[in-house]
Amino acid sequence: MSHLAPEGLLTQVPIGTFTTEAGATIPGAQIAYQRWGTPLPDHSNVLLIEHALTGDSRVDQWWGDLLGPGQALDTRRYCIISTNVLGGCQGSTGPSSPHPDSSNPAAPDVASKTSNTSTAWGSRFPALSIRDQVHAEHLFLRALGIERVHAIIGGSMGGARTLEWAALYPEFLQAAAVFAVSARASAWQIGIQSAQISAVENDPHWHCGDYYHTGQSPLKGLATARRIAHLTYRGELELDERFGTSAQEGENPCGAYRSPQQRFAVESYLDYQAAKLAERFDAGSYVTLTDALNRHDIGRGRGGLNKALGNISVPIFVAGVDTDILYPYHQQEHLSRNLGRLLGMSKIVSPVGHDAFLAETRQMDRIIRRFLDRAAELPRT
Amino acid sequence: MSHLAPEGLLTQVPIGTFTTEAGATIPGAQIAYQRWGTPLPDHSNVLLIEHALTGDSRVDQWWGDLLGPGQALDTRRYCIISTNVLGGCQGSTGPSSPHPDSSNPAAPDVASKTSNTSTAWGSRFPALSIRDQVHAEHLFLRALGIERVHAIIGGSMGGARTLEWAALYPEFLQAAAVFAVSARASAWQIGIQSAQISAVENDPHWHCGDYYHTGQSPLKGLATARRIAHLTYRGELELDERFGTSAQEGENPCGAYRSPQQRFAVESYLDYQAAKLAERFDAGSYVTLTDALNRHDIGRGRGGLNKALGNISVPIFVAGVDTDILYPYHQQEHLSRNLGRLLGMSKIVSPVGHDAFLAETRQMDRIIRRFLDRAAELPRT
Repeated sequence: MSHLAPEGLLTQVPIGTFTTEAGATIPGAQIAYQRWGTPLPDHSNVLLIEHALTGDSRVDQWWGDLLGPGQALDTRRYCIISTNVLGGCQGSTGPSSPHPDSSNPAAPDVASKTSNTSTAWGSRFPALSIRDQVHAEHLFLRALGIERVHAIIGGSMGGARTLEWAALYPEFLQAAAVFAVSARASAWQIGIQSAQISAVENDPHWHCGDYYHTGQSPLKGLATARRIAHLTYRGELELDERFGTSAQEGENPCGAYRSPQQRFAVESYLDYQAAKLAERFDAGSYVTLTDALNRHDIGRGRGGLNKALGNISVPIFVAGVDTDILYPYHQQEHLSRNLGRLLGMSKIVSPVGHDAFLAETRQMDRIIRRFLDRAAELPRT
Repeated sequence: MSHLAPEGLLTQVPIGTFTTEAGATIPGAQIAYQRWGTPLPDHSNVLLIEHALTGDSRVDQWWGDLLGPGQALDTRRYCIISTNVLGGCQGSTGPSSPHPDSSNPAAPDVASKTSNTSTAWGSRFPALSIRDQVHAEHLFLRALGIERVHAIIGGSMGGARTLEWAALYPEFLQAAAVFAVSARASAWQIGIQSAQISAVENDPHWHCGDYYHTGQSPLKGLATARRIAHLTYRGELELDERFGTSAQEGENPCGAYRSPQQRFAVESYLDYQAAKLAERFDAGSYVTLTDALNRHDIGRGRGGLNKALGNISVPIFVAGVDTDILYPYHQQEHLSRNLGRLLGMSKIVSPVGHDAFLAETRQMDRIIRRFLDRAAELPRT
């Protein structure tokens, strides 16, 4: 049995020098993870959970009602492992992590005496693809002594990683489940995601990605990006149910002169969501991970999209949300028609939009149980 | 017969001092318009066409295939009148127009000798509601000697004006047709439209709206706003058909390090659309008109949305686009269920999204003909 971290404790695992698909290197890379439940000696009860763009390894927080004894992700039966993605900012190596040069024991004077510019990776952190993220997790699992898991499960960017797992390392998993994701970025996604990246890059506090030592942070740009993103995550029906055209309390958005301080309630809500993200998330990671989403393409270098999907031998369960405008349901239908081995398909019906895979607990509970039931019936290969 | 402008010639009509719903005044306001076809003496063949946010009076350009002898908007039968909206920048009074103080003949020295700050309205231009835009057009038509028209037709912001026409001046029109619009702004629209306004307002060249004399212009902010807006106007299916994940020619968006100069084709397309708009459209007008869209609410001060719609006596034809994410089709269904007198309903089926009411000429031709046929059968009231 491998030596896993104590239950729930965020733990970092070194994976050595990581080389990206495009040829850049990250020396001293590490992947942070959490674990719940006890693995069987052959790891045949391990579930790897893949988080979305601004998520992290804390499955107990973002899928809290789905994780635990007797829950869909049953910690009495399964061992749940969840990583922080490479490029992230919750324990794994990313743009805000110390650059190896800054902690080089052979030259301690350099880091302490010269400018701080070299303490964080910043603009030196390479671009990542979804495949890079998966290669890094593969190294991480092998570092833990795990050579095969029962299943990998993920939504949104986590779904993109899960698909790439099935394409890159089919021998590594028995089955997979992907939610609210597509076989590749769509032009619309690239457009709206690039607009978010621009909002960060145009903030003068971004300093071309090297803001970590300046005492400044591109909070305004990150907030703008998040406001836009949030409107792609939440359905217009749900937002309208909650806010309609109401004014924020004490403000008048219909006065004689326009003022940014006189807001509709939905503006105040988006400001709040943006501020919350800016507090907990690094702008450099936001750009790196959003850029990775732009690069998501199962077909690249594999003879095209449908050929690549058809060649995936891992049985995959697919679910999508009827009101998702970021990953419209037809994209999950496309997956279902073209994947080599479809294990099942579910539609999440919700006014919430894309985020329904996080918010609609009752439906997700049923979907994950159905997936795990079907995966359990598969002959062990 | 009134004295109308020569066919096709952009002509300005003074409407005096205009007072907004919220109590601000615009002295010396004027509305620009164009005219095609010949009016009957009682104006019973006049069609007023209402343009969308960044449109203008040039119907011959944005609905070119629908206007002319024998076309749906048949200039042999109808007299087509199209205005530039109050607050716009194509002839009607807006933030970029000269402020009256700057051309006050009693004090010419002030304007010529002091700073240029007072030459354009800039931040002194009041906020407008859709109702204000309609009141201004009502003054404009009466200034032309027109007391009633056959029909008013508009899509998107033009559809919002058309609905307000029917609510404010039901005696002024025989019938109306509205496309890709809703009874009020949705919270999602307010959110995404406010994000666009913020993008302009955060541009240091905006100078709180008073940039006209600075030699600078918030082109970058306006471009960002337009990129976001464009993604709400165009369907993801159509964008994906055209661009998918293709790289822009000669650029590599999947290189080892992210660079804003290495773009996907859709990014280059959005940059081009943004630059085109920034060339022809004033940022001040963009903010004023987008803010007016946020304020769109047929129900405000009228006992609620459905009561207000039910009280509209003008027969109205409604059409929407199946793939519109900005004004989803359920919003047009809502109109159809609640309007006092529904003249008919059509669904535009298109991958194009919201802009289909401009782009799908064949379907729009049929819809406008069907509407005009039904309007012609109405008993003259």
